[in-house]
Order: sequence, then structure tokens, then C-alpha cells
Amino acid sequence: MQFSSPLSTTQPTSDRVIERDFTLGDITGVVWSPVSGEPAPLILMGHGGGLHKRSPGLVARARYYVTSYGFRAAAIDAPGHGDRPRSEQDAQWVTAMLQARAAGQSITPIVNEYNASLAERTLPEWRATLDDLEAEYGAGPVGYTGMTLASAIGIRLMAIEPRITAAAVGGVLLDEPLLEAARNTRIPIQFLLPWDDTEISREDGFELFDAFASEEKALHANPGSHYEVPWYETEDSGRFFVRHLMH
Amino acid sequence: MQFSSPLSTTQPTSDRVIERDFTLGDITGVVWSPVSGEPAPLILMGHGGGLHKRSPGLVARARYYVTSYGFRAAAIDAPGHGDRPRSEQDAQWVTAMLQARAAGQSITPIVNEYNASLAERTLPEWRATLDDLEAEYGAGPVGYTGMTLASAIGIRLMAIEPRITAAAVGGVLLDEPLLEAARNTRIPIQFLLPWDDTEISREDGFELFDAFASEEKALHANPGSHYEVPWYETEDSGRFFVRHLMH
Repeated sequence: MQFSSPLSTTQPTSDRVIERDFTLGDITGVVWSPVSGEPAPLILMGHGGGLHKRSPGLVARARYYVTSYGFRAAAIDAPGHGDRPRSEQDAQWVTAMLQARAAGQSITPIVNEYNASLAERTLPEWRATLDDLEAEYGAGPVGYTGMTLASAIGIRLMAIEPRITAAAVGGVLLDEPLLEAARNTRIPIQFLLPWDDTEISREDGFELFDAFASEEKALHANPGSHYEVPWYETEDSGRFFVRHLMH
Repeated sequence: MQFSSPLSTTQPTSDRVIERDFTLGDITGVVWSPVSGEPAPLILMGHGGGLHKRSPGLVARARYYVTSYGFRAAAIDAPGHGDRPRSEQDAQWVTAMLQARAAGQSITPIVNEYNASLAERTLPEWRATLDDLEAEYGAGPVGYTGMTLASAIGIRLMAIEPRITAAAVGGVLLDEPLLEAARNTRIPIQFLLPWDDTEISREDGFELFDAFASEEKALHANPGSHYEVPWYETEDSGRFFVRHLMH
């Protein structure tokens, strides 16, 4: 893992966050840390489909986790997103999805196929990133958060990655592999369900929520689509992570 | 309103809460305040059906609101509950409900009739209590919280009482008057939906949640029945009230 600058000389931003870009092979990522430099639980932040590691909403949530609770947060670009070149096949999926949406057709089969492919490629990348972040900063409790594509990746990831012990996810299209991953998940879950989403049905959300084998799971539904999640849900997720990652 | 002791001489309990019983005509109630004595937003705490103003869960939540956030909290016994004599007709409703439950029959029609009658009697009592608490402690922002019977009463109350500006309710049997009250409610709502309740269906919960005309409303679903609401929902409601009642 190559960092943009050594930890010892990186200056904090005005809100007292240490922000460092990194690369790891083809992976491009960023990590936000508190200035204290002390060990901190790590929140892995997935980005939504078509977005990237520095999407404004993701950055705002990452900085909030750091400044309000003292977490560390990290994001990586999924393949073909952000600073990473998009393959011909990925470009075809994107084109097909945009055409289906413009034609008023369901995007579900295309998105599910595309998300499954991205997840297959991103899971080992997240695990390698986690290895190297632990080498740089020390090992500690790990959470995962993110909706849509980030949940399609994250729910698969937490089913196989025992270092992740709490997750705030949701707003994701349903398919059988995702249900299967949820059935293999026992960690506490805070599950976001956009109440009026035209692309993801409530019933699919209920089915996925039900599938988690977790003893503690809470479903939070709010009016609007997955583009309109209220900020207080970020606050709720912060307290959820405090409860489970800061003992 | 007659208090059990003057405010000036009441000693705080070990957790630094000033607790005072009061009566107002037939009403029996209790108010919990921070020791600071400063003005504080007031949380009206309804009790569940068959319970009373000092039910352990209610008291724990009231003390939490006071000690963690500096709220004032107040509870009154519904007619025929706690320290108040039960009328012949109320006793008949209770007997009928217990018999129906024991026979494996639906308790819904009986509970809805009983709750509606209790609400009709309790609404003016809550309003008179609020008048006198404001006279004693000063006027300020007011919230309401409570499930089952407390929601059957509270949702009707907030539809006609403009001093209540935020409410955490839910887990209540559905009927048309309650839906109508929800349609007339525009204040922020945190709505609890017990995910596996054998007596209150999810669909009824969804219908009631949908009925609220509130711009901000969030549905929180947790595994289990309305007897098993996790403590972190109390914490979530505390932060919800902070957001809306402490400006």
C-alpha cells in the first residue's frame, strides 16, 4: 500500500481530520483519521453505483464519523469507478442500464448482473485493503457502511470477512446471492429502507432484512428514495457503530 | 394540581432526579426533573394497556431522558389504571379481552373499543395536566412517547394539541379514528414497529405510518413483539427529542 504522504508529516484539514490517499496495486483509496493518532475502530465506506470514493455524501459521512466519534474511515473506488479505468464490459453494462432506465424498463436484471461482477472483483480488494490498513494503523474493530452497490458488495463481504463486526446497509436490489449472504450474516445490522423507492420495492427490502441471521437488526424506513436518506440516519449509524465497535 | 412536596424542599434521588407525585382532580401523576431546576423540554410518557405511571420500563425511560439529556418527563395513570379506581364497564372490557386472548380469539375489536373510550377520557386530562405543569415549571417544547394504549391516546392527543411538537409512538392496534388522527398530524414522528408481533400486524403498522402527514417520519422495526423493544430504541428516541425539542 502506497500512501500519498507519510503519516508523520500529513497535515490535518481544518476540521482536524488526517486525510491520506493510497494505492494498492490497481486499487485507489482514501483514509480519514482523527488527529489524535490513537488506535480507532475502522469504518469501511462503500460508494453507490456510478459514484466513487470521494462522492460528496460519502466524504461528509466519513468526516462526521471521524470528527464526532473518533473513528477511522476508509473508502476505495470499485473497479471502473472514480480514478479507475472502466473496462469495455463494464461500460456496456452502464450503457444498457441507462438505456433501460430511459426506456422506462426495469433496470433490475442488468444492475444485479453488474453488481455481482463488481462484488466478485471488489471483495478481495477490500480484504487486501483491510490487511494493509491494519498493518499501517493497527488492528481493531471494523464496521461497514453504504447503500445500493455498496450494500451489494458489503453484504457479500461481511458474510466471508470475520473482521467486520457491525454494518449499516440497505437500499439495494434483491437477488438470490445477496439473500444467501444475508442468511450467513450474524453481526448486528442497521438496515436502511427507502420507503418510496421506485426502483427497489419495499417487499424486497423486507425479504432481505428478514434474511439476516443477526440477533440484533433494526430496519429504519424513511420517506423518499435512496437518493434522499436523511442526515439523522448518518447520526443513527454513528451511534450504532459506537455501540458495537467502541467497548 | 397538588404536589406531594414543594419543589423547593424535594430531595433528588441518587441518580440526581427530582421526582414528585401529583394529583389533579381524579388524575394521579408523577413528574421527573433534572436537579438543575432550569427550564427543560417536557416529555409526556404514556403507559401501555394494563400498566401504570410507574411501570418499570416507563420509569427507566423517564429517568434516562432526565439524566442523559436534561429533559423533564411526566406520566399520568389512565382511568382505571395504577392508582385510579376501575369502573364496572372498564372491568368488563378487561375481562372480555382476557377471555378472548385465552380462547385464542382476536382481541382487536375489544381493545380498540376500550382504547377509544380511554382516549376520549384521557385527552382532556393530559391537556389539563400540561396546563398545570406549565404553570408549575414554565412553558417549553413538549414531546410525547409511548406504545400500545399510550399510542392510541397519544396519536389522538397530538392531532388536537399543538403544544406537542414531536412524538415517538407505535406498536398499536389500527382503527379508523387512529388513522384519521394520524392524517391530521404533521409533527416529526419516530414510529416503532415490532417486527414479529402476533397481535399487531406489520401491514397495519405500515398503514398507520403511511397515514401520518408529517414531513419527517422514520419507521424503526426490530425483531420481536411489542414486549421486546430493545433499549437502543429509547436512546434513539432521546436523540430524536433532542433534535426537535432542544434548539
